[in-house]
Amino acid sequence: MFKLDSRLERDTIALASLPLCELLLMNDANYPWIILVPRRICLRELVELSDTDQQQYFLESNAVAKLLQSQFDAYKLNIAALGNMVEQLHIHHIARFKEDVAWPKPVWGAVPAVAYGKDKLGEVIELIYAGLTMDSGLEMSWLDS
Amino acid sequence: MFKLDSRLERDTIALASLPLCELLLMNDANYPWIILVPRRICLRELVELSDTDQQQYFLESNAVAKLLQSQFDAYKLNIAALGNMVEQLHIHHIARFKEDVAWPKPVWGAVPAVAYGKDKLGEVIELIYAGLTMDSGLEMSWLDS
Repeated sequence: MFKLDSRLERDTIALASLPLCELLLMNDANYPWIILVPRRICLRELVELSDTDQQQYFLESNAVAKLLQSQFDAYKLNIAALGNMVEQLHIHHIARFKEDVAWPKPVWGAVPAVAYGKDKLGEVIELIYAGLTMDSGLEMSWLDS
Repeated sequence: MFKLDSRLERDTIALASLPLCELLLMNDANYPWIILVPRRICLRELVELSDTDQQQYFLESNAVAKLLQSQFDAYKLNIAALGNMVEQLHIHHIARFKEDVAWPKPVWGAVPAVAYGKDKLGEVIELIYAGLTMDSGLEMSWLDS
């Protein structure tokens, strides 16, 4: 049975279940940072997804990319499957800005994470929710965070 | 007309033209590091590829992933579209090893690049060529590097 990696669970807020992926928000107010985790067991690499799952992954990744552009006005997207620390396949989708704390460097290890305050978190969740439900056409169940 | 970004041109060795992407080898002997650049103009993000191009991109990305696994015995793949420094859409495909110089950190900015010596470069190109022609089923023209 699929079980989210414990480190991802600790570092993120689970927001929604998309048809293939769990949608997590990294608990780091430095950047709007969404992580997609396909609900498949024992996968470490994108290339290990079946063809059908890859197609679905791309739909969900596109939806997240578009919402980071439309709702957060991202200057640049950083999309990455690294997994050197957490082996469970997970794909980072990060909205970057010329004025963010790590720009133009990649975010990993750049500065310590800043946990969201309650108000800011609510605001970010609302933007993500609006972006996903308006544009994506994806069926999803929204998790009560 | 498509023109490769000048920084990518400077930092890499162009190896092959796949149906959608130019296949470049980063001139950094620290890691087997391939960059795919879709031959489309004015694109900055994966989400800007047409549906057809996305499908083709995934075929080519999978082929590169598989060759990094089969020919270089990668412990982990790092696949990333960042583009904070070079705006032209390009996607990194890097073979990572527990004993590489940056492990487990991401490679960007970790240590200075080490240019390939001639022998090592020939060896790496041969491995890439063998991996692509054996497994990928992709049509390609091989560039005379």
